[in-house]
Amino acid sequence: MVTLASDFGSGSPYVAAMKAVLLRAGVQAPLLDVDHDLAPFAIPTAAFVLWAATREFAGLASVHLAVVDPGVGADRRCLAFDCGDGRRYVGPDNGLFEFVLRHAEQPVQAVELPVPAAAAPTFHGRDVFAPAAAALAAGASVDSRGARCGDLARLPLREPQVLWVDRFGNLITSLRSLPGELAVAGRPVVQAHRTFAGASPGIPFMYLGSLGYVEVGVRDGNAAVQLGVGIGSAVVVPS
Amino acid sequence: MVTLASDFGSGSPYVAAMKAVLLRAGVQAPLLDVDHDLAPFAIPTAAFVLWAATREFAGLASVHLAVVDPGVGADRRCLAFDCGDGRRYVGPDNGLFEFVLRHAEQPVQAVELPVPAAAAPTFHGRDVFAPAAAALAAGASVDSRGARCGDLARLPLREPQVLWVDRFGNLITSLRSLPGELAVAGRPVVQAHRTFAGASPGIPFMYLGSLGYVEVGVRDGNAAVQLGVGIGSAVVVPS
Amino acid sequence: MVTLASDFGSGSPYVAAMKAVLLRAGVQAPLLDVDHDLAPFAIPTAAFVLWAATREFAGLASVHLAVVDPGVGADRRCLAFDCGDGRRYVGPDNGLFEFVLRHAEQPVQAVELPVPAAAAPTFHGRDVFAPAAAALAAGASVDSRGARCGDLARLPLREPQVLWVDRFGNLITSLRSLPGELAVAGRPVVQAHRTFAGASPGIPFMYLGSLGYVEVGVRDGNAAVQLGVGIGSAVVVPS
Repeated sequence: MVTLASDFGSGSPYVAAMKAVLLRAGVQAPLLDVDHDLAPFAIPTAAFVLWAATREFAGLASVHLAVVDPGVGADRRCLAFDCGDGRRYVGPDNGLFEFVLRHAEQPVQAVELPVPAAAAPTFHGRDVFAPAAAALAAGASVDSRGARCGDLARLPLREPQVLWVDRFGNLITSLRSLPGELAVAGRPVVQAHRTFAGASPGIPFMYLGSLGYVEVGVRDGNAAVQLGVGIGSAVVVPS
Repeated sequence: MVTLASDFGSGSPYVAAMKAVLLRAGVQAPLLDVDHDLAPFAIPTAAFVLWAATREFAGLASVHLAVVDPGVGADRRCLAFDCGDGRRYVGPDNGLFEFVLRHAEQPVQAVELPVPAAAAPTFHGRDVFAPAAAALAAGASVDSRGARCGDLARLPLREPQVLWVDRFGNLITSLRSLPGELAVAGRPVVQAHRTFAGASPGIPFMYLGSLGYVEVGVRDGNAAVQLGVGIGSAVVVPS
Repeated sequence: MVTLASDFGSGSPYVAAMKAVLLRAGVQAPLLDVDHDLAPFAIPTAAFVLWAATREFAGLASVHLAVVDPGVGADRRCLAFDCGDGRRYVGPDNGLFEFVLRHAEQPVQAVELPVPAAAAPTFHGRDVFAPAAAALAAGASVDSRGARCGDLARLPLREPQVLWVDRFGNLITSLRSLPGELAVAGRPVVQAHRTFAGASPGIPFMYLGSLGYVEVGVRDGNAAVQLGVGIGSAVVVPS
């Protein structure tokens, strides 16, 4: 299957255009939308969501087309890479793959995609990335699409912090194991529970979330609103 | 086919994760998103939308995965049930299936799904419901997935009321046949028409909607805004 | 494949209902959502987005179901037409196809779809258009679905103007080639660049966009917000 993620906006004709390119190239696999409302200028958040949405595809022959690309037409590279577990990714080399790379179980094999002279300088999603994704979906190897390259762009994230806030207001932090206590926005969180049902309504608590990161939630409430924090807020673990 | 509905939010990585589980389990059928912006704490509305979105699948071998699950990890049961008309549903036993059950033409056959020890206590959608949906899509019977259970959770809805408001501001009431007149939020509605084109602009009127419920609309307008009513507002039929 | 576009709202049960009709009729082709958040009363904008989203399907045997239909149940015709390049469209004859027709490379062949007596007078999408789309997807010709008709509804657009604003705030104008300068909302735009990377941050510039129309953008900014303009704003090219 081919998944698509972008910051074009749900319902954007640019999304439909990428799908048409995939289908014109003969892609038979299902096309799955991941998220087209990724924040246009928030690469770290987009990188986290992209990883979270595609990590479960490990073990499946899958292609993940990701376009959050404020530098389109500039000198950032166009990439395709293979995680070695079935997942192949295609998109700009601007940090968008930070969390995919951080969680990769082996070094990825990446190539720089050539940009055809006829490609629209403002829409590599349609004219560079979608054709490459179609070729990979048809069975082509990553290596067949361009010259091997290394040193993919990474994001120097200050940690620990809040990486993402889900629709329920739960804070997904960058911590990977439960501390004795933590503080976010100067507000201490000292309780830990396995489930929301086990927590007291209204009192922020931490739990190991389904993504493998420590989360902060409020039963019957919204932790982000209650604590007044958001993506990028610092998380402090008292030493 | 397998449809998916949840309150995770459009573009949530949790939706993509459930699809990955379905695909890893070998599901070949199309995956159709119904709605992932169901209101997190509004089970009655979610229940109405879920029924409205899936009722036309009667007659098709279909699996409907529905996750609005504030009680995840608590003692609410995990369900799978068969409507006897091709439709099978999977999700939490918390009232989410109220309207599906209310409209079922025969008693449904339901089982309680076991929860694996390794299931994330905050994400049964991925670890309990999606695997069950995959099994049903592959041809397994509902009975093969757990022990038969009864007394599914129902919602004691006060009626008549406004069950849902569509994007155009039309009020979908719980009435099944057109009364001589009705009042909503103290505002009388006395005109009835078959079509919007037959109504006078600006004057609220009632009509039998495409879902089989009485609706209130305003031609070239928005009934919800004009009347100042919303989901849950009482509807009064003068006796 | 069959694409679907409407103003029903993302996650509307009416969208799912149309898909169920397609699947019940035996459609095997992928169902692709284009956009279900088209503005309910803005036919010109919907017409532009519909064209932009489906133009790349030229060359593919494809059916495009489009429902923005404020006149449903009135005397506007129900249409199906063939562009001669693989694309077939189904929807109401109210101007929604303006840009598809404007860009068609040959005269389209259109028929008026009959409306069954049992069709819900407020939901031709489910009861007229989806069945017709299913038949076309199964290989039926447009001519087999109704009587040939002409004089499709067109929109008398005042030009030049801003046809659409994308999620990044870029203005898609109705101009097809770059002028020496232009003004929008009384604000002159004199710079032209091929890419955003080539432009100076903060200064509006024009470029030939990926849709073949002249666009106005601001590097690292939002042209619509910065210039205070939106869809329908006049564009002036000094003579």
